Amino acid sequence: MASIKEKLTSIEQIPSLVYLCKWLLICAIIGVLAGSASAALLESLHWATEYRESHKWIIALLPIGGLIVGLVYHYFGTSVVKGNNQLLEEFHSPNKIIPFKMAPLVLFGTVMTHLFGGSAGREGSAVQMGGAIADQFTKWFKLNKDDRKIVIVVGVSAGFASVFGTPLAGAIFALEVMVLGRMRYDALFASVLAGVIADYACKMWPVHHTHYGVENVPGIAPDTLIYAIVAGLVFGLGGLAFSKLTHFFTVLFKKLNYPPLRPLIGGAVVAMAVYLIGTTKYIGLGVPTIVAAFDADLPWYDFAAKLVFTAFTLGAGFKGGEVTPLFYIGATLGNALIWILPLPTDLLAGMGFVAVFAAATNTPIACTVMAIELFGAKGAVYFGIACVVAYMFSGHSGIYSSQIVGSPKH
Amino acid sequence: MASIKEKLTSIEQIPSLVYLCKWLLICAIIGVLAGSASAALLESLHWATEYRESHKWIIALLPIGGLIVGLVYHYFGTSVVKGNNQLLEEFHSPNKIIPFKMAPLVLFGTVMTHLFGGSAGREGSAVQMGGAIADQFTKWFKLNKDDRKIVIVVGVSAGFASVFGTPLAGAIFALEVMVLGRMRYDALFASVLAGVIADYACKMWPVHHTHYGVENVPGIAPDTLIYAIVAGLVFGLGGLAFSKLTHFFTVLFKKLNYPPLRPLIGGAVVAMAVYLIGTTKYIGLGVPTIVAAFDADLPWYDFAAKLVFTAFTLGAGFKGGEVTPLFYIGATLGNALIWILPLPTDLLAGMGFVAVFAAATNTPIACTVMAIELFGAKGAVYFGIACVVAYMFSGHSGIYSSQIVGSPKH
Repeated sequence: MASIKEKLTSIEQIPSLVYLCKWLLICAIIGVLAGSASAALLESLHWATEYRESHKWIIALLPIGGLIVGLVYHYFGTSVVKGNNQLLEEFHSPNKIIPFKMAPLVLFGTVMTHLFGGSAGREGSAVQMGGAIADQFTKWFKLNKDDRKIVIVVGVSAGFASVFGTPLAGAIFALEVMVLGRMRYDALFASVLAGVIADYACKMWPVHHTHYGVENVPGIAPDTLIYAIVAGLVFGLGGLAFSKLTHFFTVLFKKLNYPPLRPLIGGAVVAMAVYLIGTTKYIGLGVPTIVAAFDADLPWYDFAAKLVFTAFTLGAGFKGGEVTPLFYIGATLGNALIWILPLPTDLLAGMGFVAVFAAATNTPIACTVMAIELFGAKGAVYFGIACVVAYMFSGHSGIYSSQIVGSPKH
Repeated sequence: MASIKEKLTSIEQIPSLVYLCKWLLICAIIGVLAGSASAALLESLHWATEYRESHKWIIALLPIGGLIVGLVYHYFGTSVVKGNNQLLEEFHSPNKIIPFKMAPLVLFGTVMTHLFGGSAGREGSAVQMGGAIADQFTKWFKLNKDDRKIVIVVGVSAGFASVFGTPLAGAIFALEVMVLGRMRYDALFASVLAGVIADYACKMWPVHHTHYGVENVPGIAPDTLIYAIVAGLVFGLGGLAFSKLTHFFTVLFKKLNYPPLRPLIGGAVVAMAVYLIGTTKYIGLGVPTIVAAFDADLPWYDFAAKLVFTAFTLGAGFKGGEVTPLFYIGATLGNALIWILPLPTDLLAGMGFVAVFAAATNTPIACTVMAIELFGAKGAVYFGIACVVAYMFSGHSGIYSSQIVGSPKH
């Protein structure tokens, strides 16, 4: 009575079980390693930030730090210099195993960038460490092409989830970031598992993730819905501006033919700018300002200053990542919006925090889930609307030039 | 200096704005109508359930009720009898506008089913009302083929979001249910907007959604992770069993050539069974048992009884939907798992609530988000793991036979 399809269905639970055990093993190993690498990154950045803030003269050495990072990548890291884009490219058209040295190099480059006062993030570093660690198992476990795609997703998920303490957001981010406007579920199970295990492994180390709170959430009504849409639109344009400006500075610095010169000169300009404006609030990760954006009155131009500092720092070839600066830009932009939109400060800051990031990376669902994991479920609808509208208004390119357009935004 | 692609990108915000305004208008109208239709459904079901429980003799008339539903659909509803599958089919290969009568017919059929004591749900009805209402705008607004796909998603999102009070889950469900293992973002903005507006519109009416609580959530650790995976596996098999059994009974009843006879005979069997076992806890929506599953000790076989009753009721041609019964099956199955898995009762019930549904409909991300919207973010990782593992173990067919397989599960 049962058709062939039904018969196949009725026994496919056995391969499912084999698949589950296989990926549970792989994800456990990669998760523990990538989570521990994220812990090392977080601790190193904590130390670098503390040291810089209590020895501010070190910022004067930013050009030297930049030169060192530039030289190291020029002579030892040309095969890994494309960073996140390299992971995306290997996912789309597998070519060769990501060299393991991507991990130590990006860790070194990121710590140097933060120690001497560049403006950058950390997710790029965590994702690259996760990806490079994960891809070694392609060799060791002799995985085929399809499995290797999953392994890359696993590495990205593990790195992202553990560096921010957001396991589900990391898992969805890794699936969502590969193709703009489309998500495939082939790697869903492994991605979730890797995110959860890496987050657990990272927290086994004495690290701490910053806590944010969004408590003031008005009920959804026609007026608040319109405010949320307008906010999302502004966040989308913020994300777009960040992508464009980073691209602009990257192209500009490429005019210097000898790559190590780029961070040398870029570092000199950033150090000079910090000296002239007399504050370090726009360099480094900027976590204190992100936290302040949830309740304090900040200058309205904070987001613009951070945007320029980060786009310039990354364009010059410093290492780190874009996401924490995007959180900064979004949270301060949300904070600035209280002058025109009657929504609570913490809600607007939280919406901006995730929505500018969603816009620049084209990952609206991961960012909505991230907001829920970081700020709680109370504002879920606002986060969702902000991320989706921002996604729609950020154009079809983002900060990852190797992202493929899978379906148009409208 | 800017390439053509950049120029295009820089101006694509204008079409985005036009798109936003257009879909804001369409979603507002459809959302208000579909949300109000859901409110009418919820109120009617509330009345039908109250009436049945205080006039239990009416269950004896279930065969008559079934005959009426069967006759009505046979003589007036052949063009809308495929229900949810019809919406999926029109999404994949647009053929003709869904007749508006799908909405009143399914409302009538569902209320009759519940009044006389069939075991069924309500989401199928809400989704069909939403879809039928939405698709009328295809005519009135002269929408093209691409826009019509979005309209169908909008209708499904609005119906689902409003009937359960879960706007984001409704929005993601509508995108996720169309293709197994793949999600496209073309309709993302409209879907979110429709879910939020329909939920708001439904709550403007004097309806109430049941509240559940999952408070006891242990930290994730190697042992609890394994328990969550095992639970997910069991929930996946539960979802699979439901799909198979519903399919089995549907095929069985098809042997009766005259369709109105099917619910007549099916109704007689169900009424007899209720009389013999002496309880009405396995018919109707079963909300009181779902609520009890979060803290009470229930008989371990509750899930199995509900599974058989619902598969039989729906196979016989009664109307309603599968989702609330799937919640029931999942929550009671989770409740039964406390005998073998050392996780808190409310957490297991909550995991089962969404995971059996995720398994049967192949919508793991919507179900994870739904759990967060219904139970809070505390157990998010457990919900995510349960839904993803259940999804993996439920095979490549589900309760919607018109769902297309977009990517294999492993």
